[in-house]
Amino acid sequence: MTPAHITYENGVLRLLDQTKLPATVEFVELRDVKSAANAISRMIVRGAPAIGITGAYGLAIAVRGSAGKPDFASALKTAADGLIKARPTAVNLAWAVTKVREEVTSLAASGASPRALIDAADRAARSIHDDDIDRCRRIGDFGSSLLPSGKDVMTHCNTGSLATGGYGTALGIIRSAWRDGRIRGVLATETRPLLQGARLTAWELLSDGIPHTIITDSMAAHFMKTGAIGAVVVGADRIARNGDTANKIGTYGLAVLARAHGIPFIVAAPLSTFDPKAASGGDIPIEQRDPHEVTSYAGVATAPTGSSAANPAFDVTPAEYITTIVTERGALALPFAQSIDGVLTEIRESAGSRS
Amino acid sequence: MTPAHITYENGVLRLLDQTKLPATVEFVELRDVKSAANAISRMIVRGAPAIGITGAYGLAIAVRGSAGKPDFASALKTAADGLIKARPTAVNLAWAVTKVREEVTSLAASGASPRALIDAADRAARSIHDDDIDRCRRIGDFGSSLLPSGKDVMTHCNTGSLATGGYGTALGIIRSAWRDGRIRGVLATETRPLLQGARLTAWELLSDGIPHTIITDSMAAHFMKTGAIGAVVVGADRIARNGDTANKIGTYGLAVLARAHGIPFIVAAPLSTFDPKAASGGDIPIEQRDPHEVTSYAGVATAPTGSSAANPAFDVTPAEYITTIVTERGALALPFAQSIDGVLTEIRESAGSRS
Repeated sequence: MTPAHITYENGVLRLLDQTKLPATVEFVELRDVKSAANAISRMIVRGAPAIGITGAYGLAIAVRGSAGKPDFASALKTAADGLIKARPTAVNLAWAVTKVREEVTSLAASGASPRALIDAADRAARSIHDDDIDRCRRIGDFGSSLLPSGKDVMTHCNTGSLATGGYGTALGIIRSAWRDGRIRGVLATETRPLLQGARLTAWELLSDGIPHTIITDSMAAHFMKTGAIGAVVVGADRIARNGDTANKIGTYGLAVLARAHGIPFIVAAPLSTFDPKAASGGDIPIEQRDPHEVTSYAGVATAPTGSSAANPAFDVTPAEYITTIVTERGALALPFAQSIDGVLTEIRESAGSRS
Repeated sequence: MTPAHITYENGVLRLLDQTKLPATVEFVELRDVKSAANAISRMIVRGAPAIGITGAYGLAIAVRGSAGKPDFASALKTAADGLIKARPTAVNLAWAVTKVREEVTSLAASGASPRALIDAADRAARSIHDDDIDRCRRIGDFGSSLLPSGKDVMTHCNTGSLATGGYGTALGIIRSAWRDGRIRGVLATETRPLLQGARLTAWELLSDGIPHTIITDSMAAHFMKTGAIGAVVVGADRIARNGDTANKIGTYGLAVLARAHGIPFIVAAPLSTFDPKAASGGDIPIEQRDPHEVTSYAGVATAPTGSSAANPAFDVTPAEYITTIVTERGALALPFAQSIDGVLTEIRESAGSRS
């Protein structure tokens, strides 16, 4: 198994620096909320659930620094906004940060001591972290049963332990399916520009002894045509109410290609990925990153100076290309608009009944 | 304009080293046939028409070294075989080498002097080179008129001056279309693993002042969905009698995506790209290159040691995904099987009437 990549103890958040993998296993220690936001935007930690967890711990650090001070409420708001803005597409980040903030704010309103606020924030963040691992295992086990037997699975980007609290979403399905003897191996797309597939997914699969082959993103169609691929499984950064799914750039193309080859296209995501405020994919903001991520690698220019490049970090896959969305409560029934509405209502009601 | 990248004078073949672009403009000088074959397999020169031209000059060098010797015929055969085997997919290489060899062999049979053989080989190679530039200009001008007006064009890999004797095939169409004011600009896929799009196509477009944006291969579908792309134009390494087309890995995926978005998919290729011996794509050998091209860049590993990678250099796009094939004689009529048969018969007959 891969090492614990997010740990938190007494206001110190320790992250495995994913930008340095696989060459170097190096950790960074963060002691203030700005550093946490910066680690998220620089992609030292990435993956929708993992940046949610990091955001939650980041806010807990902010609570530690400001609990009991007169500007506590505004300091907390500034900290939360800074974390949420660090990356705009994955909704899990806003979801997790808001969850910790609401917990602490309601406790502060009831006159709790600074110590109690700090403890509550730590507890809330840790519970998001622990829950995530549990949710991933359930997603993995539900998803495994959906994969055709005896074939390879194709996956995109990294959706494993490194992208979550542990185990992974789409890679969680692959882990469970390998344990269950359902799949032959994995085709991992390298996932340009930042190569999360080649650098991170391959690293996790190697640690787990799961047979895998790295391919360039451009090879996906060629290998689909061979008939070896039983399913494509991917994660999600934000899912709209109609099922339209934002995920790592390249996902939409894989979905169209999977459809053309009659291959099931499976999205794996915890319920924190669903955005009740987004009616469809058009409502999801797409992060545009620095074009130099496309035009250079390891400090070496890959394109002439003067050429421009585009770098949208995500794309939106329309719901009609998605065969199944697997959550910690199982696979959502079709039509997605209806099943998502049902799940979101249930969550709202159970949150309402708790407060 | 980009500098002359293949020049030949008195048995010395001078090639622009394309593996070093765009960082360094550096030339290599080759004085024997083995070095020429090696330059082709190492991709110092690449692009189906360009490796054909290089192969032709390579054989001319071999003639220079063996004309008048008792083992001339077998030396010529060994040289030709070595060149043709340097890269297996592009048929233009075999076509050009065979053309020079046949010219010299028939002259040798008629008792020509060593000097006459050397001159004939040089002349045959140079004529293949000159003809190619002319063919490319005609492909460019025919193809330009097929592009929808006022939109961007997407292209894959490098099919420009660097891939041909000059001007380019698919990039020749883009050059003509830009000159004619038909297109707004170019989206160039970076073309992993060797980044010919980012390194070479961008370099040519920059020299010509044609507006362009580099995208990762995985962004193609995202940009097709925006409606900005009027056509996808690509080159070809070998076209079977039914129109199935082998070209740089990733081409097939782009063709499927173009079809799904209602975008014309145009293949640009001189007639030397058609293989009368290949009935369909299944008869085209696909070169498998070193997986390290996928798992490292500029000497830096991009994947963990122990992970395996695939590296097919080409894929096959079935004829039904291709809207038009543009040759130096114009666009081939549908069905391709019939128009290709007509063109191949014509070529065979005109070759027969010459001899």
